[in-house]
Amino acid sequence: MIYRVDLASRQVTREALPAAWEGLGGRALTSAIVSAEVPASAWPLGEKNRLVLAPGLLGGSGASSSGRLSVGAKSPLTGAIKESNTGGRPGQMLARLGIRAIVFGGSREGRWEIAHVHPRGIELLPADDLAGRDTYETTAALHERFGPKVGILCIGPAGEQRLAAANIAVNDIDGFPTRNAGRGGLGAVMGSMGLKAIVIEPTDTPVQTSVDPERLAQARRRFAQALLAHPSTGQSLPRFGTAALVSVINALGGLPTRNFRQGEFEEAARIDGQALYTTIVERGGRPTHPCMPGCVIRCSNTYPGPDGRELTRGFEYESIVLLGSNCGIGDLDTLARLNRRCDELGLDTMEMGVTLGVCMEAGVLPFGDGQGALNLLEEVARGTPLGRVLGQGAAVTGRVLGVRRVPQVKGQGMPAYDPRALKGTGLTYATSPMGADHTAGNCLPGSALPDGTKPDPHLRDRQVELSRYLQHLATIFDTLGLCWFTRAPILADWSLLTDLLEAHCGGEWSREKLLALAQETLRREREYNRQVGYGPQHDALPEFFHEEPLPPLGLRFEFDPAEVRSVLGDL
Amino acid sequence: MIYRVDLASRQVTREALPAAWEGLGGRALTSAIVSAEVPASAWPLGEKNRLVLAPGLLGGSGASSSGRLSVGAKSPLTGAIKESNTGGRPGQMLARLGIRAIVFGGSREGRWEIAHVHPRGIELLPADDLAGRDTYETTAALHERFGPKVGILCIGPAGEQRLAAANIAVNDIDGFPTRNAGRGGLGAVMGSMGLKAIVIEPTDTPVQTSVDPERLAQARRRFAQALLAHPSTGQSLPRFGTAALVSVINALGGLPTRNFRQGEFEEAARIDGQALYTTIVERGGRPTHPCMPGCVIRCSNTYPGPDGRELTRGFEYESIVLLGSNCGIGDLDTLARLNRRCDELGLDTMEMGVTLGVCMEAGVLPFGDGQGALNLLEEVARGTPLGRVLGQGAAVTGRVLGVRRVPQVKGQGMPAYDPRALKGTGLTYATSPMGADHTAGNCLPGSALPDGTKPDPHLRDRQVELSRYLQHLATIFDTLGLCWFTRAPILADWSLLTDLLEAHCGGEWSREKLLALAQETLRREREYNRQVGYGPQHDALPEFFHEEPLPPLGLRFEFDPAEVRSVLGDL
Repeated sequence: MIYRVDLASRQVTREALPAAWEGLGGRALTSAIVSAEVPASAWPLGEKNRLVLAPGLLGGSGASSSGRLSVGAKSPLTGAIKESNTGGRPGQMLARLGIRAIVFGGSREGRWEIAHVHPRGIELLPADDLAGRDTYETTAALHERFGPKVGILCIGPAGEQRLAAANIAVNDIDGFPTRNAGRGGLGAVMGSMGLKAIVIEPTDTPVQTSVDPERLAQARRRFAQALLAHPSTGQSLPRFGTAALVSVINALGGLPTRNFRQGEFEEAARIDGQALYTTIVERGGRPTHPCMPGCVIRCSNTYPGPDGRELTRGFEYESIVLLGSNCGIGDLDTLARLNRRCDELGLDTMEMGVTLGVCMEAGVLPFGDGQGALNLLEEVARGTPLGRVLGQGAAVTGRVLGVRRVPQVKGQGMPAYDPRALKGTGLTYATSPMGADHTAGNCLPGSALPDGTKPDPHLRDRQVELSRYLQHLATIFDTLGLCWFTRAPILADWSLLTDLLEAHCGGEWSREKLLALAQETLRREREYNRQVGYGPQHDALPEFFHEEPLPPLGLRFEFDPAEVRSVLGDL
Repeated sequence: MIYRVDLASRQVTREALPAAWEGLGGRALTSAIVSAEVPASAWPLGEKNRLVLAPGLLGGSGASSSGRLSVGAKSPLTGAIKESNTGGRPGQMLARLGIRAIVFGGSREGRWEIAHVHPRGIELLPADDLAGRDTYETTAALHERFGPKVGILCIGPAGEQRLAAANIAVNDIDGFPTRNAGRGGLGAVMGSMGLKAIVIEPTDTPVQTSVDPERLAQARRRFAQALLAHPSTGQSLPRFGTAALVSVINALGGLPTRNFRQGEFEEAARIDGQALYTTIVERGGRPTHPCMPGCVIRCSNTYPGPDGRELTRGFEYESIVLLGSNCGIGDLDTLARLNRRCDELGLDTMEMGVTLGVCMEAGVLPFGDGQGALNLLEEVARGTPLGRVLGQGAAVTGRVLGVRRVPQVKGQGMPAYDPRALKGTGLTYATSPMGADHTAGNCLPGSALPDGTKPDPHLRDRQVELSRYLQHLATIFDTLGLCWFTRAPILADWSLLTDLLEAHCGGEWSREKLLALAQETLRREREYNRQVGYGPQHDALPEFFHEEPLPPLGLRFEFDPAEVRSVLGDL
């Protein structure tokens, strides 16, 4: 079943999932709907755009880490098709309500609404009292009104201002808005519709029924055991979280430092997984915390300040590095405050980390100036001219400030892996329909090709194949609603996954069928982008990655355009 | 002969015009050099860009209106190839020195230079004393230093700030910097090279000799007589200047008013050619004034303030309309002050007119607020965050302020003809390699196809052919260094032109040869843009021109994408 909500007419309609979209979920479904229903020439903040929510195919299965939610639209940041993927409560809740997708469109100026999703339908409720309130305040007010069990997606002041770095905040298992559909400015799309929040009621009697509950229960157990047995998902992630990567990527010489001028940060040990773990434990926080109910990996955390009171949560690798080493800031408490303030305002921590680095490159403030960075976030909060510039993200900020070295692709700021040191990841940045994106096929050290080969991230050898393969895999996981971190045991034994799918959705599933579905989704997304006006020339990194050797190892991104374009074929 | 000046090494070299570029001048030559020497991926403000000056093929011939200068580069405004065309002194002076082109490149940070062009060569001289000074101050200081007869190109504070709306100011016959290579932000390119000014010494013994001086003298006379005998170049333009168009375009329902919301301005009669003429004459200004020595058309002017002292000059149609009706401002004195301040700062009046209209659309200030508009120019002068946004032009300003209705194509603000009422002009905006540009093939009422048909600007019929034809013609005129306004008698008798060319340059010339040269130039420019990343989707107007009927006549731009692209063929 899919819902359509028209904010202009306030009409809500419900229909069965059209046959053409049968078998699609998550990213495959959001991209199919956006490409079918949003004209490529549409203004992303205009009435022709759509905001699409879709749980993955495994949503509602109860399998560990399977409750991720895809949010799709035409992105105001990139102008391209976008799928932003989030943990938190809502994915599983929507699936349990039997909802395959909600398609929001239209807007009526000067009014804020809540979309209230419950077992009997969706209603629009006035939300003018929430206007201007930050995501923590908004989420708390909504829990107050609708009870502690609801799922919530909301925007903060950044989304209300329709800034292209605005995200959509999602409540976590404790009811805090610290999971995010972070990338691509989808909060601005929600803001442009006058939609302040989406509230989802829980259901005790799920409409979504699995085809074979018994087989599913068994498959779930086997999957959870495999996750717990694997070193990555059973030991490293639950202990250090994603911040474990800080020391790994720093040692590799690829940790973005001072606007991607260096690949090694002299203060890396102050912000790495061990430092984070020690600080959290000393102060009584939770070094391990699930982003969604039922996840056995629990790679998130809560971070207390020096006084022991919680300062932020969901304080993870990308935010720590892009706000941290990339801005020359080596102090976890400062980074926690920046992370918290971004979350409150509804700003993507990644886009803002890159943007702040660009401001520092331009001399607006010195590298390492944490207080200055916090002050700049207040400019965004107040909607000053400079704040509006920063809120448009790194590419626009670079243009306005006259900065050449802007680490971005297709208008989206670059994640926390320097593409000169992680070459497959660089190929993914260059070619993904999503712009520079670490969730679209991140080629971390140790990533293996189907034949078991693990290309050295520093070397060019077989990186084209690796990026292509991992972009397809990432598309599969985002279509299933399954966390990318579960991939290690699955790649060793695909029956873990196909068992879950067959028991939950029915039909026959195989690795090949999933890869074909990923290929079709990527093709569809790229065709959409081609219609927008993206061509082969846009499948590229900024020239400085080709020209400037990255200290200390002197690495460059030395692929030629034809090689880059061979990853997914010519746009 | 061409010169190359490397601002980084301070080396100047001279070489004969390479054989491949023989027979090229003006736009054909700047575009050939830019496309050959500037990589499509180059940052427009980086060391790989080039700033190319080239007089036209008729430069130095002494024919009326033949001294226009082409300035080419990769544009920081559009990212595309750019030729910006200016009157004033320098075009003829360079040609008389035998210089076919000067190619500037490189830069050394933190130093300002003057390029001093004299009969023996080019020298770089320090100009740090001129840093921060406006174009009037700079030009006056250079005349003081080098004498009253030099030709001068310079940038103001906008170019020094490397803003994408920065122009290059050129001195007129009285030594004021009021002619401009206005469009495409070429002042920012000059600023990025640390080049504050180019000073050209006059020569009494021209190196440039014509092939057949006697025939040339005769051809010149015949050409001047034809210009004087034609109603447009002999009567209307010399009396009312280009502002004669205000009432024409207003009557046509195509005068951009309040950010292209209306096609008719209720105060048009206060800013039209008659009002301008009366005001100038009453106050003792010059209603007719040549932009370059020897021009018989004399379509420019000098404009005194209420106290009789000169307030501005070169106060013409595009500036009057885009700063005026487009901003809802119907007061000539206010517009003269805006025009003067843009000239002083080295800002393109057209880009700023469109940008101010976008600010008014966003509610930054109300339509009609002349003092507010002047204040915003001071933000640009001071380099405030808002000023830097405005200085990036209309497209960036619209993005930052969240405005949907931004009249621009390929990042360049739209000239003063609404494409819904002047459909052929709209097709030129959409398809010209220069972005929205009135000098690239403007289909004014009365424009005729080769068979004599004059398509109605309101109707679609034959507009595709008209835009195609006029884009080729405009390319010819910009290649010859010949003012576009001379076209009327030439189109009636091409021998006026081929006589001049054969006598001055030698060889045989024909209309067909010139059209072939134009076609090759357009092909080269479009191929460059394709490599930059412009594709068929970018040959388009913003969607609101298709969707919003233009009051009062309710006109739309109703061409479909395939028709638009048929003008010059698919990008």
